[in-house]
Amino acid sequence: MKIAGTPYRTIWPAGPGVVRVIDQSRLPFELVTLDLKTLEDAAHAIRTMVVRGAPLIGATAAYGLALALRMDASDQRIEEAASTLRATRPTAVNLAWALERVRGVISPLAAAQRYEAAIREAGDICEADVEQCRSIGMHGLEIIRRLIKPSGRRVNILTHCNAGWLACVDWGTALAPIYMAHNAGIPVHVWVDETRPRNQGASLTAFELGAHGVAHTVIVDNLGGLLMQRGEVDMAIVGSDRATARGDVCNKVGTYLKALAAKDNDVPFYAALPVSTIDWSLEGGSDIEIEERSALEVTEVSGRTAAGAIGKVRIVPDGSAALNLAFDVTPARLVTGIITERGVCEASREGLLSLYPERRLRA
Amino acid sequence: MKIAGTPYRTIWPAGPGVVRVIDQSRLPFELVTLDLKTLEDAAHAIRTMVVRGAPLIGATAAYGLALALRMDASDQRIEEAASTLRATRPTAVNLAWALERVRGVISPLAAAQRYEAAIREAGDICEADVEQCRSIGMHGLEIIRRLIKPSGRRVNILTHCNAGWLACVDWGTALAPIYMAHNAGIPVHVWVDETRPRNQGASLTAFELGAHGVAHTVIVDNLGGLLMQRGEVDMAIVGSDRATARGDVCNKVGTYLKALAAKDNDVPFYAALPVSTIDWSLEGGSDIEIEERSALEVTEVSGRTAAGAIGKVRIVPDGSAALNLAFDVTPARLVTGIITERGVCEASREGLLSLYPERRLRA
Repeated sequence: MKIAGTPYRTIWPAGPGVVRVIDQSRLPFELVTLDLKTLEDAAHAIRTMVVRGAPLIGATAAYGLALALRMDASDQRIEEAASTLRATRPTAVNLAWALERVRGVISPLAAAQRYEAAIREAGDICEADVEQCRSIGMHGLEIIRRLIKPSGRRVNILTHCNAGWLACVDWGTALAPIYMAHNAGIPVHVWVDETRPRNQGASLTAFELGAHGVAHTVIVDNLGGLLMQRGEVDMAIVGSDRATARGDVCNKVGTYLKALAAKDNDVPFYAALPVSTIDWSLEGGSDIEIEERSALEVTEVSGRTAAGAIGKVRIVPDGSAALNLAFDVTPARLVTGIITERGVCEASREGLLSLYPERRLRA
Repeated sequence: MKIAGTPYRTIWPAGPGVVRVIDQSRLPFELVTLDLKTLEDAAHAIRTMVVRGAPLIGATAAYGLALALRMDASDQRIEEAASTLRATRPTAVNLAWALERVRGVISPLAAAQRYEAAIREAGDICEADVEQCRSIGMHGLEIIRRLIKPSGRRVNILTHCNAGWLACVDWGTALAPIYMAHNAGIPVHVWVDETRPRNQGASLTAFELGAHGVAHTVIVDNLGGLLMQRGEVDMAIVGSDRATARGDVCNKVGTYLKALAAKDNDVPFYAALPVSTIDWSLEGGSDIEIEERSALEVTEVSGRTAAGAIGKVRIVPDGSAALNLAFDVTPARLVTGIITERGVCEASREGLLSLYPERRLRA
């Protein structure tokens, strides 16, 4: 998508042994890129959320594994590098999926061929992600079309966290249908949950929607329930970091609360995700490991100071503890449908199998 | 309650024509008092949330009306002053209640007697509030006692916003039972919702619990659902700015989302409030006017900078709109019970009338 008229992706190769990413920890106030040259660069970028979003984490991990092999492509090095990368973020299943995909391609090869093959495979993962997101957008667009009002009043869509192009390579998952609707001239307006503690909604979703010209309003995470009670939300759509075989949706913490409010007010609630987000090995969401992050993300808030610099303020008294669990699980019963690159299905085992019948054969 | 060993109230007379309050906009990092000497001082303190919390707003309005009459106690002046004060915060019913109570006492008096009588009545309102909160605490304590575990494990209570002594004159509403439980040696631990946008939980609730020595952990507003799913919340208890005759509870925005999660996980959900919070004239909560506050409260976050000063950071891109509605309404069906100074009742017309039978006679 575009920033001030210039087309961007979130990650791209930038010469031999260099992968360039947008440093998302500095958005929305500074647009800066960062060069990844080593395994540690990639692991650090994922860990510190320079890159984030399940699909982009997968793409970065794939490139990170490739970068790790430039000087030493032994089996042992592959093992070590994959292990380091897997440990950066435990919840996102795309990370493990991308690592396995690259390993599957390079393991049979001679060591001398592995680096080039891994770079190519990481690039293919990125291209496939773009195509998947485009397809998710087309399928989601059909849902939005059905919400168009004869009055011409705007279609109000609530989203939580950032599942836009900044979370992927391009287009996004939850936001792809919104971009497509906007491009098709449908008057969409997005309620953007700020998404504490890291405010990916207030910073990233608001930034990318604004940069593309999509009408939006930032709200605190507490407000969505009232807006639904008042009929101000026509649908909710979120991304996911891991979905189970029966359609439970693990996503940024607070998603479950919005899904409850949507159910209570008959607001359709969708999760948009590519196949790589589905963890077919898990039935119920309560088995998903929920990442615990630093309490400092709760006690301190980052933003632009009056002087124009990026700074932090502490909002909690010094003696108070804080707990920071990054995700929650929305049970399938609260999810109206799952939008994937193959179409829209019910959030259930049968629903998902109807889109991925090859999984039924394996069972 | 105490701060560093010194007993405090939130508001008290401090000499002729002077009412002193704790400036809550500077907590938790600075403990500063402010002197109110005029109607405008009082109205400004309420409007800018130097004082906040439904009962304290009522007490401050009562004193504000008294201060307005020091130089001119005419009927017209009473009318003007009440009108100015009523306009400061539209949602809290205690404000209108306190103004009517003072007016009822002073209207029959000669102008020369009105100021002194109003000051006395404001003082009586404060004393009555303290006694009501103490009673709420005693009744709520019985609920907490029933949650004590044979294992001796802590009793986990979630609260939203600040309905502690800082929201009242002393003790608090939602926190009064918690203080009583703590004082009785029950191992209570409080999950403190930070309560965006103004972070009254992170700043005020964490501060007052810490100052009194009650174990607590600050969490983002998004986390409570997951904690309930995991069995980490034994009860939720909140205050209220206005409750309707059938038990709908209007409280700080986001309360409704927590009530939904409590219901979904069989966690008891209580609202604690004095009789002055009940708006007997309203049946359903959807009729309550919800205050819209400045979008700057969403786009900027206030706290302590690295340099130790109080400062703000902006968290939303410059071009993005924000909406700031301050309250929502939790339907009675989601409320396990209402705790008042008279006892605990079901959240229903019959439940409230069982505690206030005199209201039945009037119907």
